[in-house]
Amino acid sequence: MLLDRQNPHGGDIYTHRGVLDFSSNINPFGTPEAVRQAVSEAAAHLSAYPDPYCRELVGALSAYEELPAEMILCGNGAAELIYSFAYALPKKEKALIVSPTFSEYASALAAAGIAYEHFMLREENGFRPEIAPEDTLGYSAVFLCSPNNPTGITVPREQLVRLLETGTRVFADLCFLEFTEAPERYELKELVKAFPNLTVLKAFTKSFAVPGLRLGYVLCSDPDFLRTMSEKTQCWNVSLPAEKAGVAALSCMDFLTASVRFISGERARVSAALSALGVRVFPGEANYLLLYSEAPLYEKLLDRGILVRDCRNYPGLRPGYYRIAIRTAEENDRLIAAMKEVLH
Amino acid sequence: MLLDRQNPHGGDIYTHRGVLDFSSNINPFGTPEAVRQAVSEAAAHLSAYPDPYCRELVGALSAYEELPAEMILCGNGAAELIYSFAYALPKKEKALIVSPTFSEYASALAAAGIAYEHFMLREENGFRPEIAPEDTLGYSAVFLCSPNNPTGITVPREQLVRLLETGTRVFADLCFLEFTEAPERYELKELVKAFPNLTVLKAFTKSFAVPGLRLGYVLCSDPDFLRTMSEKTQCWNVSLPAEKAGVAALSCMDFLTASVRFISGERARVSAALSALGVRVFPGEANYLLLYSEAPLYEKLLDRGILVRDCRNYPGLRPGYYRIAIRTAEENDRLIAAMKEVLH
Repeated sequence: MLLDRQNPHGGDIYTHRGVLDFSSNINPFGTPEAVRQAVSEAAAHLSAYPDPYCRELVGALSAYEELPAEMILCGNGAAELIYSFAYALPKKEKALIVSPTFSEYASALAAAGIAYEHFMLREENGFRPEIAPEDTLGYSAVFLCSPNNPTGITVPREQLVRLLETGTRVFADLCFLEFTEAPERYELKELVKAFPNLTVLKAFTKSFAVPGLRLGYVLCSDPDFLRTMSEKTQCWNVSLPAEKAGVAALSCMDFLTASVRFISGERARVSAALSALGVRVFPGEANYLLLYSEAPLYEKLLDRGILVRDCRNYPGLRPGYYRIAIRTAEENDRLIAAMKEVLH
Repeated sequence: MLLDRQNPHGGDIYTHRGVLDFSSNINPFGTPEAVRQAVSEAAAHLSAYPDPYCRELVGALSAYEELPAEMILCGNGAAELIYSFAYALPKKEKALIVSPTFSEYASALAAAGIAYEHFMLREENGFRPEIAPEDTLGYSAVFLCSPNNPTGITVPREQLVRLLETGTRVFADLCFLEFTEAPERYELKELVKAFPNLTVLKAFTKSFAVPGLRLGYVLCSDPDFLRTMSEKTQCWNVSLPAEKAGVAALSCMDFLTASVRFISGERARVSAALSALGVRVFPGEANYLLLYSEAPLYEKLLDRGILVRDCRNYPGLRPGYYRIAIRTAEENDRLIAAMKEVLH
């Protein structure tokens, strides 16, 4: 939990009660019924410790990702695993963060006492991930996110391979990959097996709309590094309700497929509508869009009961950048209508 | 989660399916109905992030502990907070662990890259916590547990005060304090306020039988140190079901009072019965007892469907030491009967 730190993220519906939250990127279909049911049933079994090996969930993930169980480590949300990765890095070398991006990479590196620099993607190139292998020389690890948060831009597979071929450790946050239309083009299992310097982060948070529950995992074929990561936290970090929910979620792939199809259509529709209003919309591939608007939006939308993510606190962005989630058709209509009023 | 590490703890009912588990120290009354209900209800609200400030729970804890909210930090189980404390310590000084005790202090210090030594309590003195202020000189922090796990022995308040008066940082794990018959004798709120070098650890795990859920907290009146601890983890470490369960638990104080009264009676009864069988029983004050038996017990009890905690892997103990939980009267009878058979 935060103490007197300031919350740098979206989704703070506890401060802004009753708003329509476009600031966090959660599946608009909500939590699948089977997942809710699993959590509800777990309530009757809380008096035992969770399995410190997460055997049931790791088995299900192994089948889903088509990777052996020893390449999988689960954690208390994707965010915890970012910290475990940072704590597992050597202290004396600097890390590189491909930015603008999710701020938890920098927070985790700071917590672990590891210096870092930002590799700033260029606004004039639409924040395309134009990072060359030589840019990563001398860094212990490179953090990148694909589709990137908040830009929604995807790192092409060939580019990821070129970075991996340098031997530099790459932390690839693919938490939003499930929302893109062709996640299989990454052929993740082949990449993970071929490159022990790759650590892939995934989460149930967004795809199955369970951020309240905390469940994520990493994939890595370097057994020593994965063990070091696991030793950086307590052994009971994954709660029993989270493990049960994860197993249930993996049986809901039709739900996920339907979600992705729906989001894809809505993303195109919202993008077109906002572009027509003169807002610059970046060509994101996930369940959110990055916008740029000269006219200020945050307060005026909040006055209309809509919370968006003001992106000015992302290193590499500036006032005028906002991120919006793709929600249900009716909710997206409300956003578009409010934007029309604000930009009139 | 553990990867290919060996689980050093009790409670592994996932390896030993169907056993009667005397190896973990959970309230034998089980999870209160109000707490189960809160988790079940939370299942309908998982699509929002948890409150990174845990405002509702911290407010309830503030009333319960009679300490201001800014002296409270919640975590993903007590175990996570042990790691946050270790990560917050200076790297260059050694820490001291009053042993034999819970192995997570050493694991957390190792994870944080901090050297440590054990201050070994003496078997011939019944593991009484006879540590003098001068024993702590030159250490950045002293870890102690009261009632101690696995001995059940309590550190007298005056002794804790003498250690605190040296100025050394003290990590006092009081997770089992709620089970002793007069927890108020610690006058914790006065100690926390008077000594900013004190960090008190408490948990819901044992008192309210929710180890599957992961919820603990620390009390500390040094705001800089507490902020540093909070920065060592992600901001969403406490799940929504855990926060809701904690709030519900704090309304179940009658449940806790009744549990403590019951456990106290059963502890005396089990202690007398096992002593009569020739087992050495240490005078513990919590919901478990440390035993010493020349005759081996672990395998023979497991053959009879009863799992106890073999304590040989605690630094400072040796083969022959076992820890048993106090469970329901009927279950305790089963343990006593099995012990009679084994020791016959």
